[in-house]
Amino acid sequence: MFQSLFSPSVQHAIDLIGIFVFAISGALLAVRKNFDVFGIAVLAEVTALGGGLFRDLIIGAVPPAAFTDLGYFLTPLLAALLVFFLHPEVERLESWVNVFDAAGLGLFCVAGTTKAYEYGLGLTASATLGLATAVGGGVLRDVLANEVPSLLRWDRDLYAVPAMVGATMVAVCIRCDMLNPVTSALAVITAFVLRLLAMRYHWRAPRAWNRRSTVVEVREGAQP
Amino acid sequence: MFQSLFSPSVQHAIDLIGIFVFAISGALLAVRKNFDVFGIAVLAEVTALGGGLFRDLIIGAVPPAAFTDLGYFLTPLLAALLVFFLHPEVERLESWVNVFDAAGLGLFCVAGTTKAYEYGLGLTASATLGLATAVGGGVLRDVLANEVPSLLRWDRDLYAVPAMVGATMVAVCIRCDMLNPVTSALAVITAFVLRLLAMRYHWRAPRAWNRRSTVVEVREGAQP
Amino acid sequence: MFQSLFSPSVQHAIDLIGIFVFAISGALLAVRKNFDVFGIAVLAEVTALGGGLFRDLIIGAVPPAAFTDLGYFLTPLLAALLVFFLHPEVERLESWVNVFDAAGLGLFCVAGTTKAYEYGLGLTASATLGLATAVGGGVLRDVLANEVPSLLRWDRDLYAVPAMVGATMVAVCIRCDMLNPVTSALAVITAFVLRLLAMRYHWRAPRAWNRRSTVVEVREGAQP
Repeated sequence: MFQSLFSPSVQHAIDLIGIFVFAISGALLAVRKNFDVFGIAVLAEVTALGGGLFRDLIIGAVPPAAFTDLGYFLTPLLAALLVFFLHPEVERLESWVNVFDAAGLGLFCVAGTTKAYEYGLGLTASATLGLATAVGGGVLRDVLANEVPSLLRWDRDLYAVPAMVGATMVAVCIRCDMLNPVTSALAVITAFVLRLLAMRYHWRAPRAWNRRSTVVEVREGAQP
Repeated sequence: MFQSLFSPSVQHAIDLIGIFVFAISGALLAVRKNFDVFGIAVLAEVTALGGGLFRDLIIGAVPPAAFTDLGYFLTPLLAALLVFFLHPEVERLESWVNVFDAAGLGLFCVAGTTKAYEYGLGLTASATLGLATAVGGGVLRDVLANEVPSLLRWDRDLYAVPAMVGATMVAVCIRCDMLNPVTSALAVITAFVLRLLAMRYHWRAPRAWNRRSTVVEVREGAQP
Repeated sequence: MFQSLFSPSVQHAIDLIGIFVFAISGALLAVRKNFDVFGIAVLAEVTALGGGLFRDLIIGAVPPAAFTDLGYFLTPLLAALLVFFLHPEVERLESWVNVFDAAGLGLFCVAGTTKAYEYGLGLTASATLGLATAVGGGVLRDVLANEVPSLLRWDRDLYAVPAMVGATMVAVCIRCDMLNPVTSALAVITAFVLRLLAMRYHWRAPRAWNRRSTVVEVREGAQP
C-alpha cells in the first residue's frame, strides 16, 4: 500500500539489525539473572520478536513474520551465542548497544505503525500497535525474567515516549497523505534522537501527583 | 444472533463504564507500585481491555474490539489521567470503585459468554471465555506489576466465582433457548450481587485439604 | 496430511494423559504457593493447555483445540480436584508424576511440530512451535505464580533440550520424507528417555562463560 521506506532488501537488513540489538539486551539480562545458555536464547528471541509477534496476532497476520522468516528467528540466536561467549566484552560496549537499541526503537515504532495501518486498523490503533511493536519485546523479557517491566518504572529514562512520538508522526503523515520514505525516515530519526537525549539527560516521566498519602501502601505492596 | 441485552448505544455506554472502572483499578495499582504516568496509562489499558483482547484472539475476532473502537481505547486513558491527578480522592472513593468493579465483572462475564457463543464456541468454552473476559484484565495487570495475581490468592474475597456463576447462567439460558434481555440482566445482577456479598462478608475459597505436609515447601518456594 | 502416529482415538487418549500430568504439575505448584481451589484449577488449566494454545494462536488455528475439545478442558479440572483432596499422596508419587511429565514432554513436542507443519509453517518454525507446545504451559504456570520460569534457570535439570531434540527429529524426518508412525514414536521415546536421563544424572546446561564480571550485577538484580 505504501511505498516502503527503503527497498525490500535494505528494509530487511535494517529489521535484522534492530532484531539483533534487541536480542542483545535480552541476552544480557539473562546473563545477569544467571540463566543457562537456553534461557539466554529464549530471552534473546522473546525480546527481539515479542513486540512484532503481539502486533501480528492483533492484526491477524498469522503465522507471524517471526515464524515465517528464518532470518528473524536465527538472528537472536546469533546474538545469544555472542553474549554467551563474550558477555563481558558486550557489556563494556553497553553504551553502543544502547545507541543501537535506540535505533531499533525508532525503526520498529515506524514499521509497526505502517504495517498495522496496512492491515486496516485506524490511525490511533495503528500508532498504539507501532508503540507496542517497539516496546512489547522488552516488556515480555522483563515478565519472563520475573522483574517489574523497566518500561513502567519511574526511575528509568524515557523509553516509550520517543516511540510514541515516532508512531504518532507516522499516523499524522498518513492522515495528511504525506507518508513517504522521507517522512518515514524523519519519524525514525526523531524517535532515535529523542531516546538518545532521554538517556543523555536522564529524562524521566512524572509519577502521580501528591503521593504522600500512598507511602504506606507502597510498603505494603513491597511484601505481598 | 441474540437479541442484545440493551440497544447497541446503551450497551456501548455500559461497556465503557465497565472499562472505566476496570481501568481505575489498574491505575491505582500503578500508583501504589510507584510507576510513572506512562506506566499508569499502560496498566489502566491492560486491566480494562486485556480480558476482552484475550477472548477476541481466542475466537478469532481480529482485530480485537479494543483496537477498532476508539472509545474503548480512550476511556482507560481518561481513567489514568483522573488517577494521576486525583488519586488520593479516588482512593477515598475505593468502596465505590469496588461496587462499580463488581458491576463491570457482572457485565463482562455475560457479554463475554454471549460473544464467544456467537462466534461458534461450545457452551462450556463460551462460559470459560466469559469468565476470562471478566477476570483476564486483572490477571494481566498483576503479572505486569510483578505480583501474584490476586485472583489466585486464597486471602482475597471471592472474585472469579461470581463471574463463573454469571457466565454459567448465560450458558444454561442458551442451552434452554431462554437467553433474552431479561435473563441476561438476571445473570449480570446475580454476579454483581454475589461479588458484593463476597466483599461484605469476606467469602473466601478453600485451600487444599490437609496442608500440614507442605508448610516446608511453601518456605522453600518463598526464596527461589 | 501425515498419517497420524496412532489412530485418532488412541492419539486423543494419549493427549489427555499428557494434559493430565501437566495439569498435576500446575496444581501442585498452586498448592505450594498457597493458592485457593480456584487458583489450583487455573494453574492446572494453564499448565496443561497453555503451550498448545500458544501454538494454535500462532498458526491461526482458532478457536484453539483447548476451547473446542471438552475433554481437553475437563481433564485439568479432574487433576486439580485430585490434588486439592489428595495432594500429600500426589506429592509422594512425585517421581512417578515426573516420569509421566517426561512422557507428556515427548508426546507434545512431536505432536506440536507435526501440527505446525500441517498448517504450512517451515521446518525450523515447526520445530520451534513443537518445543513451545511442550514447554509453554510450564512457562505460563511459573509467570502466573510469579516465579522465574524453571525452564530458564540454570539450577534445574535439562527440560527444554530433550523436547528440542524430539522436535528436531520430527523436522528432519519431514525433510527426508520419512515421517511415519515408527519415526514419530522414535522421536517421542528419544525425548522421553533424554528427559529421564537428565533427571537421573542432573544434567544441566552451562551458564555464560567467564561470569566473574557479573557477580555484582546479579546482586543488584536481586533487589530491584
